[in-house]
Amino acid sequence: MQKIFTPLFLLLAMLCFSNYAISQAPNAPIVVSPEVHPDNTVTFRYLAPAAKEVKLNTQFEKTPVTMTKDAAGIWSATVGPMKPDMYPYSFVVDGTTVADPKNSAIFPNEGFQNSVVEITGKSPLVHTLQNVPHGTLAYRYYNSKELGTRPVVIYTPPGYEKEQAKKYPVLYLLHGTTDTEETWTKVGRANIILDNLIAQSKAQPMIIVMPYGRAYPVISKSSGSLRNWENLQEFKKDFQSNLLPFVEQNYRVKKDKNSRAIAGFSGGGGETLYLGLNNPDMFGWVCGFAPGMLKEEFDRNNAVAFANPTQTNQQLKLFWIGVGKEDMLYPVVTEYLQVLDSKKIKHETFISEGGHTWMNCKLYLSTIAQKLFK
Amino acid sequence: MQKIFTPLFLLLAMLCFSNYAISQAPNAPIVVSPEVHPDNTVTFRYLAPAAKEVKLNTQFEKTPVTMTKDAAGIWSATVGPMKPDMYPYSFVVDGTTVADPKNSAIFPNEGFQNSVVEITGKSPLVHTLQNVPHGTLAYRYYNSKELGTRPVVIYTPPGYEKEQAKKYPVLYLLHGTTDTEETWTKVGRANIILDNLIAQSKAQPMIIVMPYGRAYPVISKSSGSLRNWENLQEFKKDFQSNLLPFVEQNYRVKKDKNSRAIAGFSGGGGETLYLGLNNPDMFGWVCGFAPGMLKEEFDRNNAVAFANPTQTNQQLKLFWIGVGKEDMLYPVVTEYLQVLDSKKIKHETFISEGGHTWMNCKLYLSTIAQKLFK
Repeated sequence: MQKIFTPLFLLLAMLCFSNYAISQAPNAPIVVSPEVHPDNTVTFRYLAPAAKEVKLNTQFEKTPVTMTKDAAGIWSATVGPMKPDMYPYSFVVDGTTVADPKNSAIFPNEGFQNSVVEITGKSPLVHTLQNVPHGTLAYRYYNSKELGTRPVVIYTPPGYEKEQAKKYPVLYLLHGTTDTEETWTKVGRANIILDNLIAQSKAQPMIIVMPYGRAYPVISKSSGSLRNWENLQEFKKDFQSNLLPFVEQNYRVKKDKNSRAIAGFSGGGGETLYLGLNNPDMFGWVCGFAPGMLKEEFDRNNAVAFANPTQTNQQLKLFWIGVGKEDMLYPVVTEYLQVLDSKKIKHETFISEGGHTWMNCKLYLSTIAQKLFK
Repeated sequence: MQKIFTPLFLLLAMLCFSNYAISQAPNAPIVVSPEVHPDNTVTFRYLAPAAKEVKLNTQFEKTPVTMTKDAAGIWSATVGPMKPDMYPYSFVVDGTTVADPKNSAIFPNEGFQNSVVEITGKSPLVHTLQNVPHGTLAYRYYNSKELGTRPVVIYTPPGYEKEQAKKYPVLYLLHGTTDTEETWTKVGRANIILDNLIAQSKAQPMIIVMPYGRAYPVISKSSGSLRNWENLQEFKKDFQSNLLPFVEQNYRVKKDKNSRAIAGFSGGGGETLYLGLNNPDMFGWVCGFAPGMLKEEFDRNNAVAFANPTQTNQQLKLFWIGVGKEDMLYPVVTEYLQVLDSKKIKHETFISEGGHTWMNCKLYLSTIAQKLFK
C-alpha cells in the first residue's frame, strides 16, 4: 500500500521542483522539524547538502547554536531542555536567515520571518490548545475612506453564536511595529489563552478585536518606520471612524466605557496609551505591554491625562503597565512610571523577567485578562 | 516629528537584532518588496550585502531571474509586465531558498516556504479584494478522538450573521499535499472569490468548509508522504465522524446531498473523488482540481462508482474535473477521463492552460462556484 503512492509523490516532488520553487529534490530525505521530545529538548533540522554552515537562532538561547550535518545533508541541533513556552526561531544558512520550511507555524510579520516552536511540558500552559470549549476567530474586513478595505481579526468567546441575547465587553488588542493583525493569535495565542481562562472561570467572556495597525497606503511603505506619529494619527482616525463603529454594528458588544478595554505590545503599546489616555470617554481599561515610548514624547502623548490626573483616575478602572527587566525599553518605561507617580496618576505595574518578547506578551495578556471587566 | 521616532526605531531595531533573530542591522536601509508598478511589472528586493548571488524564483518565469546588488547591499530585479494574477515566489540566496522577509503574504505550507505577490491590473479580477459585502472567515476547532483538536477554516457568506432563519448549502474544499487549512484562502482566495461572485449574483450564497487534511498524529510526520492511503482512511473517518457533524451542529446548513458539494486540489482532489464517488448519499456535487491519482488505483479508489455507473449518474448533479495542459498529472487525468467515458459515468471537463498551480486553482474554483447548487 505504501509503495503505490511513491510514484505520485515523486511525480509531485518533481513537479514542485520544476514549477513550485520548492527546495526539495525528488529523492530528498524526509525532514521533520522541529521535533519536541518528552524531556523538553527540541531537535531542529534543515536540509542543505551544499551549505557550509547552518546555525539555529532562537529566543531561548543567548547565542546562535551551531548545527551539524549528516550524510544525507540534513543539518540538526538538539537544544534544551527548554522552559515550556512558545518561542520564535530561525536558521542562518551561510549567513542567510530563513524560517523553517518544514514548519507551517510562521510568525506573521512585515519585517522578518521566524518560525514558532511550542514546548508544552508535562501540564498544559495557559496558551496550550486544550479540550475546552473554543471561541471563534473571525477574519473580517471593514472599510475606510482613506485606507481602503482593512483586515481585522475578531475573537468571540465560546457560546457567542448560541446566546443571541447576550452582550459582551470588548478588548481592543494591538500588535507591535512590523507585526500584523494575525500576530496576536499566531504568536500571542490570544484566542487560546481566553478559551482556557474562560473555561477555568478566571476571565470574563469577552470579545477581542485585533486590527492591523499600519496606515498603508496613506503612509508610504518606502518611508519605513520613520513616520510613526503620522501613522498614529491615521490609526486613531481609522479606529474611531471605522473600526469601532464596525465592531459595534456587527457584534453584540456593550458600548459603555467600562465594558471597553485597550491593550497593546511595543508600538501597539504606544498606540494603546495614546488612544487610552487621551479619550477619557472611550476606555475604562488601558494596558501597555512593554509600550513603545520616548521620554521627549511623554508630554505630547499623555497630554489629557497629565493635565487632568483626577479625571484620569476616575476614568480608568485599570491602568496597567507590564515590562521585562531585560527589555531595552525598561529604562524609559521605568521613567514613565515615575512620572505617573509624580502626577499621582494611579497605575498597576508588572515587572517581569525577560525581554521584549512574545513570551512576555502571552504572560501579560493572561495576567490582565483575569482583571478586565471585573 | 519624523526625527523624534528615529531613536525608538533604532532602539527597537537593535533590540530585534540582539534578541529577535531579525536579519536587519540598526542602520539597515528601507527595503520595500514586492513593489507592483502600474504597468504590471514588479520589482523584488532583498537585503543581503554579503551574498554572492541572489536569484528570484517565480511561477511566472520559467527560469530563475538573476538579481543585481546596489551599493546598499539590496539585491533587486524588475520583471514583467505580468499577466494579472497572484503568484508564489521566493529568493535563492547563495543556493538557499527564502521567502521574502518584507512580505507578510506567506504561502501556508508544511514542505516549503514561498511568498505571494498579487498583480491586479487595470480592472479587478475574480479574486481581487473589492468594496463589496464580505463574508466571514472563521478559524474554528473541532474534536477527534483519534486526532485530537483539529483546525478548520469556515467561510460564511455576507449576511449569514443577520439572516438567522436562512439555511445554506455547503462546499467542502480540500487542500493539496503539504498545504494547510489556510492555503485555500491565503493562496486560493476562496473567500474573496465567493464574495465577488455572490455580489455579482453569479454564485449562490454558500458556506465553504476548509479542513486540515493530514492525519497527524496518527500518521507519523517522519513517514513523510508515503502513507497517503492510510492518511486517506483516517481523513475519511474524521470527515464523517467529526467534521461533518461539527459543521451541521454549529452552522445553519442544508443537510440533503444536493446541498452538499466537495472539491479539492491535487492530493485533496484525490480525497475529493474518493469521498465523493464512494458515498452516494453524501454529495450531489464532486469537483476535482488536478486531482492526485495513479492509474493502478483507479479501480480501488472508484469502486462504488465503477460498479454502479447508473446510480452514480443519478447521484451527481455535477461531476467536474479540471486540469492544466502543462500539469504533470495531465496524462493520468486524461486516462481517467477516458475510463469515465468507457463506463458511461457522466462528467464535465475543463482543460485549461498552465500547470499544477494555485493560479489554476483560483480559476477552477471560480468556475465551479458558478455551477454549484443551481
